[in-house]
Amino acid sequence: MALIRSVFQEELDGVSQSLVDLSNMVSESIHKATQALIEADLKIAEEVISNDEKIDLYQHDLDTRIIDIIARQQPVASDLRALVTALRMSADLERMGDLSHHVAKVARLRHPLNVLPPELKDLVNHIGSVAENISRKIPTVIETRDTDLALQLEKDDDEMDKLHRQLIGSMSNNTWAHGVESAIDVTLLGRYYERFADHAVSVSRRVYFLVTGSFATPNR
Amino acid sequence: MALIRSVFQEELDGVSQSLVDLSNMVSESIHKATQALIEADLKIAEEVISNDEKIDLYQHDLDTRIIDIIARQQPVASDLRALVTALRMSADLERMGDLSHHVAKVARLRHPLNVLPPELKDLVNHIGSVAENISRKIPTVIETRDTDLALQLEKDDDEMDKLHRQLIGSMSNNTWAHGVESAIDVTLLGRYYERFADHAVSVSRRVYFLVTGSFATPNR
Repeated sequence: MALIRSVFQEELDGVSQSLVDLSNMVSESIHKATQALIEADLKIAEEVISNDEKIDLYQHDLDTRIIDIIARQQPVASDLRALVTALRMSADLERMGDLSHHVAKVARLRHPLNVLPPELKDLVNHIGSVAENISRKIPTVIETRDTDLALQLEKDDDEMDKLHRQLIGSMSNNTWAHGVESAIDVTLLGRYYERFADHAVSVSRRVYFLVTGSFATPNR
Repeated sequence: MALIRSVFQEELDGVSQSLVDLSNMVSESIHKATQALIEADLKIAEEVISNDEKIDLYQHDLDTRIIDIIARQQPVASDLRALVTALRMSADLERMGDLSHHVAKVARLRHPLNVLPPELKDLVNHIGSVAENISRKIPTVIETRDTDLALQLEKDDDEMDKLHRQLIGSMSNNTWAHGVESAIDVTLLGRYYERFADHAVSVSRRVYFLVTGSFATPNR
């Protein structure tokens, strides 16, 4: 029995490690997508786009493995909850990969032109950094189950929301001189980054819930 | 043993029924959100917004029930797969509720103004109908597990993509006379409807996969 338990524990650890790997993959993906966007770099955009398939496959294999563990080990309540949560986290991470892919596709669509008007480059670069920064914290949240760090991601997301409003605001005033097509691109890009951060926060909330058993929203 | 199996079967049927109920809730929600948008009706917008909380609670209760069934019944491979799939379907449906809520919030934000320029009302109304129409098919897909109908949702989604391109195209030409703020609203609305339909298709694909065991993309 001790042996079986130990194999099971190893399997759970393996799942956590795969979630960490997946987080690292999507952090790299959003990093490169932002680079492709800011520098109008087609090669990097293509790299992000083709890499998304690898992320999807990795997630698919992980999910298959998790379901197999549930079927074989028939875990009790708390372990089962952890495994179901892992499925949800992998879905969030896969979606973050999709959103990086969407950013890269906008860069590719407009190449060799630069999607962004020069005066928005710094802001979008900042938004990209905040998105990447949030996702870079996920592995530590998963590995340490540090609830303080999990709460910190909520604050990072507040920063993202602020920057997102600033981005939309920069187009809504009467000085926008780049046409409607450009405004559509920027609106969608803003949405992709915002959703990327939302999913990162969602991953962190799931860890928080696993540790504390509570959905309680932190004071911020 | 026969008795236990039968209780389990009842529980599975109950889960299917709840997924059907949830589908009906989100269909109603997107229906009303479109109405609020087209008619700039604040009362209906508020209704959709407050109703989203009910959808979230319903989904949360359903998920808790599904996990409880897995924990108690320790189902074998195919039943376990069905229950995990149910969790994913409920997540898609919950997200469809969120997206209806987003549409309603845009309508509320601009009230008493109408978000849409007069010449886009018909197109957006059509997009809203296609979205609702797709989600209205989900209960039948779940109840009958009809793979032909599941494939039909893919075609409906092609129609959605076509209309979505038309919507974006209507702003991208040089005749757009409604300013950038309006273009931002319309871009986001288009995105919300498109994603709503994507999630509906995702629900239907999950049923297709459960029945056929294959992810194979249909010919279209």
